[in-house]
Formats: sequence, C-alpha cells, structure tokens
Amino acid sequence: MTNTTTVVDCYIATWNERDPEARRALVATTFAHDADYLDPQMSGRGIEEIDAMIAAAQQQFPNHTFALSAGPDGHNDRVRFSWLLAPAGEAAIAAGTDFALLAPDGRIQSVTGFHDLVA
Amino acid sequence: MTNTTTVVDCYIATWNERDPEARRALVATTFAHDADYLDPQMSGRGIEEIDAMIAAAQQQFPNHTFALSAGPDGHNDRVRFSWLLAPAGEAAIAAGTDFALLAPDGRIQSVTGFHDLVA
Repeated sequence: MTNTTTVVDCYIATWNERDPEARRALVATTFAHDADYLDPQMSGRGIEEIDAMIAAAQQQFPNHTFALSAGPDGHNDRVRFSWLLAPAGEAAIAAGTDFALLAPDGRIQSVTGFHDLVA
Repeated sequence: MTNTTTVVDCYIATWNERDPEARRALVATTFAHDADYLDPQMSGRGIEEIDAMIAAAQQQFPNHTFALSAGPDGHNDRVRFSWLLAPAGEAAIAAGTDFALLAPDGRIQSVTGFHDLVA
C-alpha cells in the first residue's frame, strides 16, 4: 500500500467483493493482521473477524454496492472518507463516514465508522 | 466527564479560554494525562504540550472563537464533531471535523483533526 487513495479503494473493493476467497484475500491485503473495526452496529479484530463481519453485512444487504462519496482526506497516518450503500441502480439507503489509522506499511490498522444515513 | 456532550463542550471551551491558568485547568479536566492531538498543522502529547499547542493557536487567531457546528455524534468510546472558527461577529474563516477516542473516565484520550475549510 503506497498511498491513501489505494488503500481506501481496496477497502471499498473489499466490502463489495462477494466471492469468499477473493474477499478474504482483499481483507488480508487491505488490513493489518491485528487491525480492528468498530461502528455503531459491528466490530471485528483481526483478518478472520473482519472478513466474517463484512460477509455478514453482505448477507444483510444482497445486491447492494458500496461507493466512495467523499475523500479520502488524509494527513500523517490518519485518513477519513465517506461512503454510500445503494441497491443496483437505486438511491443510497445508507451512508457513513469512516476514520482510519494506517499501519506503517500503509495497511489499515484501525477503522471507526459513523453513520450519516442509516438503512 | 459523564457524557459525550459534556466532554465536547469542555473541549470547545478549552480552545476558547484565553486566561492561561483557566485554560491549563480546562485542558487537565478535558484530556487524559497522556492524551494526544494530531491535525494537519499541529500535534501535542500530554497536558503541557496540548496546552502550549492551544495557546499558540490562540496567538495565531486573536479575537477568534471556536463553535461547535455539528455533533457530537458518538458510539462506544468514539466521538466525532465539527467546529467553526470565526472572528467576533464575522463569518467563519476555518472549519474542521475532529474524531476523538475517549478514555475510560470519559476524558479525551486522542484527537485527530481534519480541516474542512482552511484559514
């Protein structure tokens, strides 16, 4: 991971990848091995838990896609960005802003998610 | 510190308190002793450094006041809020969104600031 845009693009791609093996590989590429995620509804620590958490979200929202709506805006080892979740061809049903801390190798170390619009 | 609104109100009050002793006391009330702050332009760790950092910002912007413009929006031990910086009776010259991690006692453990509008 050489820059903030790349890691955030990979993060969004991870949430959209529904093939289990490909998703698991993207999680491991995007997150540090001991990364953590916390939002008002979900949490996970480490590659396995984060992958399982994303898989559960995908089951909850079949045929929906995440898209970046603002950012990434980064400084030092911190980054923020906003996203939308929408069914194919329809308006967004959820939106949020995530704050992330990056590991020294550029992977995501920690994510805190906030909801701007709740499904 | 019993709730998120109180700690964020104290945080804004700290940035606006220009009496050195009162400001130092507010910093110690609002931040954990080993708290850290990081934005694109400033950083500090611990009560003394954070107080000195805020004092320097106040010198840079005399007769300006910080005001909360959105939030606080919190979950778990995380909170986000947005602020404006304006000269007395005039439009804002700077704005930002801060993301904070709270200590177990409710004080601020860590702040990451992002700029929405730069002075």
